[in-house]
Parts: sequence; C-alpha cells; structure tokens
Amino acid sequence: MKQFFKIFIIFLVITSCDEKKSNIIVSSTSELTDALSKAVKGDNIVLKNGTYKDVNIKFVGEGTEDAPITLSAETAGEVFIEGESSLELSGNYLQVSGLFFRNGHSPKKNVIAFRTSPKDVANHSSVTNCVILDFNNLERDKDNLWVQFYGKHNELSNCYLAGKTNGGPTVRVDLKGNQSIRNYHKIVNNHFGPRPRKGGARGETIQLGSSFTSMSPSNTTIANNLFEECNGEVEIISSKTNFNIIKNNVFYKSEGSVVTRHGNYVSVDGNYFIGDGENENYGGIRIINTGHWVTNNLFYKIKGKNFRSPIAIMNGIPKSPLNRYNQVTDVVVAYNTFVDSDSPFQFGVGTNIAQAAVLPKSEIRSARPLRTEVVNNIIYNSEGDANPIIEHDKADGVTFKSNVIDNNGVAIENDKGLLVKDLTVTDIGSNLVVPVNGFSDVEPYNGFDFDVITEDLLGKSRKNNNQIGAILSDENINLNLLDKTKYGADWFSNEVEAKEATTHTVASASELIEKLNAAESGDIIDLKAGNYQLTNSLVVDKTITIQSSEEVTLIYNGAANSAAFLLQPYGKLLVKNIKLKGANTQHAFATLKQNMSNHFGLEVVDSEISNFNYALKVYKQAFSEEITFTNTTISNCENGLELSEETNDRGDYNTEYLTVDNCTFNNVKQNVIDYYRGGYDESTIGGNLLVQNSTFTNCGASEKNRILLNTRGIINVSIKDNVFQNNKVKLIALLWGAKNNSHSNNTISNSGIIKTEENLKQTLMY
Amino acid sequence: MKQFFKIFIIFLVITSCDEKKSNIIVSSTSELTDALSKAVKGDNIVLKNGTYKDVNIKFVGEGTEDAPITLSAETAGEVFIEGESSLELSGNYLQVSGLFFRNGHSPKKNVIAFRTSPKDVANHSSVTNCVILDFNNLERDKDNLWVQFYGKHNELSNCYLAGKTNGGPTVRVDLKGNQSIRNYHKIVNNHFGPRPRKGGARGETIQLGSSFTSMSPSNTTIANNLFEECNGEVEIISSKTNFNIIKNNVFYKSEGSVVTRHGNYVSVDGNYFIGDGENENYGGIRIINTGHWVTNNLFYKIKGKNFRSPIAIMNGIPKSPLNRYNQVTDVVVAYNTFVDSDSPFQFGVGTNIAQAAVLPKSEIRSARPLRTEVVNNIIYNSEGDANPIIEHDKADGVTFKSNVIDNNGVAIENDKGLLVKDLTVTDIGSNLVVPVNGFSDVEPYNGFDFDVITEDLLGKSRKNNNQIGAILSDENINLNLLDKTKYGADWFSNEVEAKEATTHTVASASELIEKLNAAESGDIIDLKAGNYQLTNSLVVDKTITIQSSEEVTLIYNGAANSAAFLLQPYGKLLVKNIKLKGANTQHAFATLKQNMSNHFGLEVVDSEISNFNYALKVYKQAFSEEITFTNTTISNCENGLELSEETNDRGDYNTEYLTVDNCTFNNVKQNVIDYYRGGYDESTIGGNLLVQNSTFTNCGASEKNRILLNTRGIINVSIKDNVFQNNKVKLIALLWGAKNNSHSNNTISNSGIIKTEENLKQTLMY
Repeated sequence: MKQFFKIFIIFLVITSCDEKKSNIIVSSTSELTDALSKAVKGDNIVLKNGTYKDVNIKFVGEGTEDAPITLSAETAGEVFIEGESSLELSGNYLQVSGLFFRNGHSPKKNVIAFRTSPKDVANHSSVTNCVILDFNNLERDKDNLWVQFYGKHNELSNCYLAGKTNGGPTVRVDLKGNQSIRNYHKIVNNHFGPRPRKGGARGETIQLGSSFTSMSPSNTTIANNLFEECNGEVEIISSKTNFNIIKNNVFYKSEGSVVTRHGNYVSVDGNYFIGDGENENYGGIRIINTGHWVTNNLFYKIKGKNFRSPIAIMNGIPKSPLNRYNQVTDVVVAYNTFVDSDSPFQFGVGTNIAQAAVLPKSEIRSARPLRTEVVNNIIYNSEGDANPIIEHDKADGVTFKSNVIDNNGVAIENDKGLLVKDLTVTDIGSNLVVPVNGFSDVEPYNGFDFDVITEDLLGKSRKNNNQIGAILSDENINLNLLDKTKYGADWFSNEVEAKEATTHTVASASELIEKLNAAESGDIIDLKAGNYQLTNSLVVDKTITIQSSEEVTLIYNGAANSAAFLLQPYGKLLVKNIKLKGANTQHAFATLKQNMSNHFGLEVVDSEISNFNYALKVYKQAFSEEITFTNTTISNCENGLELSEETNDRGDYNTEYLTVDNCTFNNVKQNVIDYYRGGYDESTIGGNLLVQNSTFTNCGASEKNRILLNTRGIINVSIKDNVFQNNKVKLIALLWGAKNNSHSNNTISNSGIIKTEENLKQTLMY
Repeated sequence: MKQFFKIFIIFLVITSCDEKKSNIIVSSTSELTDALSKAVKGDNIVLKNGTYKDVNIKFVGEGTEDAPITLSAETAGEVFIEGESSLELSGNYLQVSGLFFRNGHSPKKNVIAFRTSPKDVANHSSVTNCVILDFNNLERDKDNLWVQFYGKHNELSNCYLAGKTNGGPTVRVDLKGNQSIRNYHKIVNNHFGPRPRKGGARGETIQLGSSFTSMSPSNTTIANNLFEECNGEVEIISSKTNFNIIKNNVFYKSEGSVVTRHGNYVSVDGNYFIGDGENENYGGIRIINTGHWVTNNLFYKIKGKNFRSPIAIMNGIPKSPLNRYNQVTDVVVAYNTFVDSDSPFQFGVGTNIAQAAVLPKSEIRSARPLRTEVVNNIIYNSEGDANPIIEHDKADGVTFKSNVIDNNGVAIENDKGLLVKDLTVTDIGSNLVVPVNGFSDVEPYNGFDFDVITEDLLGKSRKNNNQIGAILSDENINLNLLDKTKYGADWFSNEVEAKEATTHTVASASELIEKLNAAESGDIIDLKAGNYQLTNSLVVDKTITIQSSEEVTLIYNGAANSAAFLLQPYGKLLVKNIKLKGANTQHAFATLKQNMSNHFGLEVVDSEISNFNYALKVYKQAFSEEITFTNTTISNCENGLELSEETNDRGDYNTEYLTVDNCTFNNVKQNVIDYYRGGYDESTIGGNLLVQNSTFTNCGASEKNRILLNTRGIINVSIKDNVFQNNKVKLIALLWGAKNNSHSNNTISNSGIIKTEENLKQTLMY
C-alpha cells in the first residue's frame, strides 16, 4: 500500500511540475503586485519561498468555479509574511494557501480581509493551509482582527491561528451591507491554538457579526475546528447573527464558552467541550435570545459555573436594548451528554433583580426563559452532584422531559423530573469516558420539529432505534479528537518538544548580564554568593529563572524610575532567593512603558525587595497572565505592587491573577497593592487577587485615598489569614459585595477596617 | 361560447350532486360537533343553510394534501354564524368556506384561530370565501382579533372582512413557538373593507407578529388583496417579523401606511397606493429596521405627510429597545413610481433630537439611515412640488441614483441629483394616470443583488430593456384594480345602492318617537313647528336626520343624567334647526355608558341647546369618527362638550374629529370643551379639534383646573378666529407645542390667555 502511495505522490509531483509551466512565479513584492494586477481566471501565482517584509497584498480578481485564481506558496509554510503586512481579497473565486504570517503585525484593521474596499468584497474565495502566529499589534489597546470576513461563500480552512494578545476577536464575520448577508461562509478544519487571556473584553476567538447586525441572516458554519486553550475572554465563539451552525468542533481546555450573544436560530450541534475537572474557567454554551437548538453535544469534566456552566440559559432584559440581553424563547436543548460536569443546567443566569435599586431598569435581567425544552439529555457523575440543575431564577418557562442522570447514589435537589438510572460508561478515546448503556428504556421526548435532529454526535442516524443522549451506539468507538494533525495547516505543528533547561552559573554582574543576554528561553541563571552591583536594567524578553541557593544581593542604582528587571514582551521571569536592593528612586520590576506587544510574567519567591520607588510597576497596556509573590519581603519602598493604569474603563486590567502569599510588607508608603479594573460589564470575570498569610506593617502612610489594598473593579478578591498592624489608613480594603470579593480571618490592629460595599459605582462599558 | 359554459356548469352541478352523497350534512350545532369529532381525511362536512347561534366550532382533524377535510356552507353565504360564536382549527389540511360571521361577536380572543390550544395548531389549512362583518366585541377596549394565524402554511383567501371597531388588529399572524415560525402563511385575494377609525392605537388591519417575536422568520405573504378605507389607525399592515412578502395589493383610500414596524428583510413589491389628492391621512410605506426592499410600487395622489408620506424612512434609536425603533440599514427603495404625491421621499422621519432634554435617552430617534439606496424611481407631478425630498434629518447614509422627476417646471430644492425630464403620461385604467415615456435614456442603477428584481409592477420581465420606474411598458394597459369582484368572497358585495331618503313629517312628541323607531337608516324626520315635550330619551341607533324648517323646541325633562338623544351603536344623528331645552339635570346628547359596540356620530347645525347638565356627554369606550357643532348656541349648561373619559392612557380618545364652528357658548360653567387623549406614542396622529369663529362668554366659572378649553393629549388642535370674553379662567387653553397645536386671531378679553407648552408630560404607552 505504501508503495502505491509513493507512486501516487511521484505522479502528483510530476503533474504539479507540469502545471508549474503555467504558473506565474514571483519572488518580490513588486513582482507579486504586477502578477496580481494581471491575473485572470485560472492563473496560479506562486510566491517563491522566502521572507516578504512589509507587504500589503491586494488580491483582486475574477476567477470562476472551475478556474479560480490562486495565490500560493512555492512550498507551503516556507513563505513568510513579516513586518507590517496584510492580505486583502476581492472579486470571485480567489484562493490563498501556504502563507505564514509571523514576526510582525498588520498596519490595517485586519491581517486578512475578504474585501479591498467597503464596496469591493470577495465571494467564493478561500484562505487555506496558512498560519498566523503572534502577529500582534504593538499595543494591547490597538484592537484589530486577524481574519475579517465580508462578502459571501468565503472560507477559512485548515489554518493555524494562535497567540493573539491585543484587543479584537481573532476572526470576525462582518455583515454590514447586503453584500455580506446570507454569507454561508465556512470556518472549517482550523486549529485555533492558544490565545492567552487578554485581561478584559474583546478577546473572542470568533465573532459572528455584531449587535448592530444582529437582525441579519448570516448562515455561517463553524465546523470541525479544534479550539485549544482559547482563553482570550469569556466568549470563545460569540454568535451575534442568525442561522449560524456551530458543529463538530472540539473545545479543549479553553477558558470560555460558546455564546449565542445576539441573533437567533443558531444550531450548536455535536461539539465536544473538554475540561480537566478542575479549572472553573472552562465553559460550555451560554444561551441568549430565540430559537437556538443545542443538540448532540458532549461535555466532559467541565467545571465552569454560572456564566461558564455547561448549559447557561440567561435571563433577559424585558424589551432589551439592541446591545443587551434579549429573553430566551423557543430554545431546544436536547440529546446532550454531560460527564463529570458540575451543575450542567443553569437557568436565570445573570439575573440581577436584586440590584434593581441601583441599576437602571434597562439593565435588569428579569425575563426568564419561555417555551424552552430541555429534553433527552444524559448526565453522568462519577462523583455525585447534589445540584445538577440550578435555578438562579425560576425555570418555569422550561419543559423538562426524558432527562436521565446517574449520580452515583447522591441525592438530588430540585431534580425537575430527572430519571435516576445506573449507567454503564465506556472509553471512547482521547480519554473520554461516556455513558453508553442503561437508558434504552427511556422514550425520547418528541418535540416540535425534532425530526430535524437526524443524527447523533458521531453522525449515526437517529431514524431507527433512537435514544436519548449524544451518542447512540455502544459499539467500539475510538475517537482521535485530540490528534492535532487533523486540524490546521498540514505543515505546522504547535507541539514543542520538552527541552531540558540549561543552567548558567554566574558570579559577577557582568557575567549575569552576558549570560542573561545569551540564554535561551527556559534557561536558568544561578547566582553564586555575593553582591551584584547593577547600573543598567536587566532585560527580560524570554522565559528565564534567576535564582540562587546562596546569599545573593542585587544592588541596583540605575537611573531614577528605571527598573532592575525590565519586563519586555514574552519576558517571563522567575526570581528565587535573591535580595534586591535599590537606591530609593528605582523600580525593582517594571514593564516597558509601551509596545508591550506580548504578555510578560513574573514570579518572585523567597526573596527580599527593599529601597525602591516601586517594587513592581506595570504600565498601561502591559499584561501578565499571572504575577505571584511568595514568601517574599517588600520593605522601605515608596510604592508596592502597582497595576492601576487601565483607567479607560473598558474592562481591562493588567494581570489575570495577582497572588501575594506568605509575604511581608514593611514601610511601603503607598500603593501597597494597587490593582484596578474599570467599567461595568456583567460578563467580564477577572481579575483575581489573592492576598493570604501575609503581614503588613507600617504601610500606607502616604496613601492619598487612605486605603491600604486598592482593588477597585477586580471581580475576584480574597483577603485572608493576614496580619495588619500599625498601618495608618482608614480602610484596609473596600470590597465589592456584589462580586466575588471576600475576606476572612485577618488579624487587624491599628489599621482601619475592611469594608464591603454591595454595589460599587462603575462606568457602563457599552 | 355561452352555450358551452352552460353545459359545463350543468356538468359541474351534476358532479357536485354526485359527490354530495359522500358529504356529511349537518344542520345543528350538535350535529356539527358530532361530525367534526368523527371527521377523517376526505370528509366534506356541509353546514345546511341557516343561522347558527352561539356556536364555537372546534375543527380538529387530520386531512391530507390530496384528501383534506372540508367544512363548508351548503350555499356559500347562506350559513350565518351569529351570537357568541367562534371557529378554531387544528390539525392538518383543513378547509373552511362559505361562512358568514355577523350579528354577534366572539367570546374568545379571536373569531377564527388556527389553533385549538397552545400546543395544537393547524397546518396547511385554509379559510376561504367567508365574510366577517361588524363582528365586534361590545366594548372598544376589549381587544380581540378576527383571524389569528398559528402553525404553518395556512391561508386566508377570498374573504371579506370589514367593520371592526374594537381594539386589536383584524388579522394577526402569531409566531410564539417554533411551531409557528417560517410559516409561509398566505393572506391572498381578500377584500379588507372599511375599518373605521378606531381612535388611538391597536387598529391595524394586519399585524405580522409582535415586537416580542420580531427576531423570528415569518415568511408570510400578503398578496393581491384590496384594502378599502382601512382607516383603523396609522398602520394598515404592521410587519413585525422577518422575510414577509407584501405584493400586488391595492391600498385604496386607506388612512394609514404599510409599516415595517419591527423585523427585517421584508419585500414590499408591486403594490398600489391610491389616494384622492386631498386626504392627508392616506399614507404609503413607512420603513424601520434592516434589509427591506421596496420595489415596483405605484403611489397615486397620496398626500400623506411625515409619518404618512409615500416613503417615510424613519430615524432609529441608537441601540433601540426591542419594542422601539431600530435604525434603518441596508434598505433598497427602487423602481417605484409616484404620481401627484407630495414629498414622496422623507428621511429622518420621527427625529426628535430637539426633545433630547425632556425625553429619556432611550427615546431619542437620532440614528439616521445607513447603507440605504433610493434609486431608479420616477416622480411625476402635474402640479410641481418644490420639495419632493424632505430631510427631517440628514440623509447622508442614503445613495441616490437614477431617479427622475417631471415637476412641470417647478424648481426643486434639495434635489439629491433628481434628473428633471419631460415625461408622457397615460391612463392605465381605474383612473390612474402614470408616466410611461421620457425616461428610457436613464440607465438604471445596478445595486447589489438587483438581479432579484426580475419583473415590473405588471409582471413584465426586466431582463431585457430594463427601465427605471414601476411600469416598463407603454403599451395599452387597462387595469381593473378597483373591480371589487376580483377580491373577497364571491357571494358578497359591499356596494350598496344609493337609496333615496324617506322624510317622515311629525307634529307631536308621540309621533316623533314612533317615527324615529320605525324609520330606516338614512331617513329624515321633519318636525313641524311647536314644542315637543319629551320625558324619555330618543333612541338613536341608525343614521337619522332630525330637522325642521320651522320653529321647533324639544323640551326634555327626563330623569337626571338621562339624555334627550341617546346615541347608541350605529347611531349617527344630524340635528338641524332645533331648539333643545332641558331642565338643568339632563344631557342633551349622550352615548350609552357601555356596550358601544359600534361607532356613533353627531352633527348639530343651526340649533340651540340650553339648560342641560351636559350638552354632550361621551362615555368611555364610545367613539365617533366625527362630531360637529355648526352655527349652534349652547347656553346655561353646567357642562359643555365632554369627551374626556379615555383616561387609561393607552392613546385612545372619543372622537377623531371634534369641530366647533361659528357657535356661541354662554354661561357654560365647566368642561366647556373637554377632549382628552392620554399616553405618549409618537405614531398616534389624532384626535383633531377645530374651534373657530365662535364666541365664549361667561363660561368656565366652575372649572376646577381653570382652563376653558381642555385639549390635553390631542395631537391636532386649532383655535382660531374666536371671541373669548368674560370667562373666569386662568387659561383659555394649554397647547402642546411639540405637536400640531396652534391658535390664531382670537379676540380675548377678561378670559386668561392661551398658553403653549413645548413638551407636555405624558405617560409612555409602551
């Protein structure tokens, strides 16, 4: 058989060589522009392998179904588009393949656009087998899109897109104008690789339209894609138009949900939502509006709660404004299977009736779902769940029928007629264990138009021997869902071989600087005992550990307001057992003031920081997924940990997680911890502040607002098991009661109090 | 040929006789119920001719396409459904024909419903060749529907519906529930006869869905219907869902518009809007929301302005609430022809930016149309119109191309590129004169997807020799649009032969009472000179004139608060040259206190009214299209003209027009004129008060609010050329500046002032 393939491939190569004669081969931007300007149907423009910098491709042409115009790489993956570059298409039957966008960003509003002007859109065109990697704008607030659809019948297929850190969805379908409705675009077989947490809104992986076009028929299909660690924000896919189909995708460890945010009559069918049984940020499907059908989906170890619960059916706002929350009506949730997923059915999500006194009436989500059917679903819990159904508000407009649960003996509250059964589970591959037996005696509820649900999750016909749940068969099933070669560009893999970290031992400041420059990402720099005098910032632009097992003091006396450690894009620093001493005007750690085009990271362990202006200064638009201080002392500093420059109140903040554990703060005069998020938006779920087991003494003396720990707008705050003594402030913290802010077991003396306000005044974001 | 038809008809009769053998003939309600309960596919249930009272038909059955179940009249039009009766259908392939609903009303929410329970709807079913006439609830405020669609693929065809006076659309398509979306209902070939002005909202002839289902696809077709004097309210057809088709209908002298009130992507194609060149209430098409196509329509002598202009494109509310005004986007207005229709293109209709200070932000219509095309239209004005295009707000989001005007030499302001041409007109029948020549050199603008506009108004292909305007051809066209036999039930005509009025001369009170009872509607009762002593009310329940050419005094001393003339449903009274005198506690004219199931009317000319409690007392829910006092004196009454009981602030009022012309009011102590409409709704256009050439002396002495003429909430008020003297009030009137309230040339002495307030505080209706 292999022999046959070899011959076949040789044949293909010969054929393609033959064809090459009619190809137009270009090797420079000017040649490309020239070739594009002359292209006629059937032309194949081939970009010679190499790097093309600062190239803005306008691919305008009229191909036909039988004779499209193609623009492809000589070798797929060997044509690099770098610098300030972009691709725009308009016309008909255009095909682009094999390009690799990297080391740069687009000077336009998008990297790839299916139009060249508002009037000139592409139709029947495709971008396939391409990669866009880390092609980020220099500033996080400078939003853009990587792929923007216009026109009709266009396709993004077999591409790999990952690493977007700036604002704006990775892919958006635009529907403004009759030329872009009923578009039947296809987003298929792609691999959406990791999109880091953005910190705030505008980090969707795919957005279908916007609220302004939410009345338009889109008919976009998103199918057979792998979404891996798409953590940008709470919405992985934000469907905002009508009649979209979201089918057979794998959502793997992605911190978000598929959300029918606006628009109606979306089919979410046969998708896999795979979590790890721990991370509460992995979500499922959040439902708003009318007429959606959620069928045949499998939820596996999804632990998301409330907005992120496997099935989150929201309350609407009566007569909602266009950009807010319409009531859920006429929704069908049928034939889904839930395995070890907590409280999979949640109703009245987002209800805020309790806040009626402080919010405008047009913000109150009090309209419960109507004419909604939750039927023929299966829940299997290897550890029982007492609350598989949660009613944040009454589910009195919901019909429950023929739903089965195996709860391993745990009693269920509020079961809505769930039938308790003993189910048999089986491994179906990719470590998925699902119930396949024990429910055949349950007659599926036959709702209106249910005959359109013709198949199960695996494509098996439901016509004869129909059963409840996502999977009909108990035959040997071996899904290879997580085989990444099935998705994305065939020439690209995001699997990196684990590399042994190299440890560089240094004994002097100059050696430290030299080794730090030379080190590869992931390396460790180990300092021998002694004092290291530094007058210039140590540049951190990769993953690096700086540690010692001896007595080490880094003494930094660089320019005022310069940083001992200058955190740059990609700079992820772990400092361990180091004493860091300034001359009072410097910063121990700081980011760049601008051009933080990718995230940084910081962890400080077993260390001492003293005599700085700022222990940590994070500038606007800089973002870290995690910042952690453990077992570290910060003393005699003018300022402590400062992350408060995201003041434009669009919901942004500077780190997803800020953790202070077992630390000591002594004589930090102001901004001891200052962590800010501004703008009211019920669906933004960060940031996260944990301050525990720490001691704060003689701090906050210069704090103008007389609050020791400033956490305004941060959604999750926990202050526990700390000691506060002799801090001359009015409040230790002002917590936000309506959000997940808490404090416990703190010992306070001569330090003010911790106050909780139920509703903090916030600027509305929308 | 005739001979052939005779034979053919005989053949048909024989055939149908043959078939009758398999018919199930019923002649009573119980037989009908029994037959219906047993009906199987192919059954023909025939109602024997006669009257069926208080019959609530539940027609539940399962027919098939080839073998429907039918329920028909033995002779179409000879089966009368009367009393408290209704018809409900559910199942499949059911057909009803030949019934006449009259002399009664429905005890349910609808007269005919295509469902028998919320779960049980009809599909593929029809009601055809039926009539519903004046089948009104007893009270105007008791809203209902005459035909309510549920399910899918149902049809109302060849029916005549007229005379609905109570609240609620005549026909509504209901979309709540997946069983009723994408319904493809057909409302075709019907004759919607006169629907009188209702006085306030909720008087649509057809409503497609509601704002709550405005996101749902309806796909309802309204085609080939005649709408004759459908004057219920400002909306004749209120389309509130998506993808509806309104095609080839004739809107004849109907005081309202076709309005795309909610929902999107409606096609309004090939309709005729026919006015009389005078009445400003005859409207055209009012556009709100996204994606509508308005093509091939003919507007003839339509004089509606602003909301009622031929093409009224509204401003939207940014991020509008669900039940308010979405922005107009992606709308196409192409290939329409306008003849002698004033200012046919109006943009920014409904803008209320000027009221931003007094209205909530969510009420301000400031969002102008976007991505809208107004192209390929023709305007012909036999008398030129200086302002064919009016921008209430800027039309900067509108593309104007290839529009032609023949303005008979009158200069045009703000022409937006209108091409001025000399056009030739021709008579195309039904008194319609349209331009057919003189524009063939204008290249039609070819917008996106314009190839879907395949035909002109008359169904002629646009493929070759396409031209602008609604009508392609200048060949002999003879439309017989207003031949009523083409619409509605084939056995019913609403044409009434003009009948000579009979004049009954009376000389005594008893004779007056007797003749009044005996008179036919339209008759005249002529009083000989003398005093007529009356102790009981004269009942007016038909159209009647009571007049004299001599000196006549009616002296009424019936019970306190009883009326000399008791105006009942259908009671339309003209009083001429009569002195009417009470004993201070009675009413000269009053309606029933309840059960005013149809409108009344009142005109008083050359008369004197004195010594009554009320000159006119109109009770809640009573409504008259017009009330007129001319050349009449009202003196020594406790109250004058009282029409102020519609206080539930739903926009209702008691008369459309109240006219007081050349009258004298002396010593009327309070409620001299009290005419009230409550509830803010920008689209309600009544009532109308004209007070002119009249004298008010020593009036209003007991008026609690110290306003002489109370007009609160009335939209059109004109007070001019009157004399006010010695009226002990603070204000003569408090006018509403933002509406069409005006006063001029009044002579005022010792009577307070006329004050205008720009924005009166009103309860929002929605």
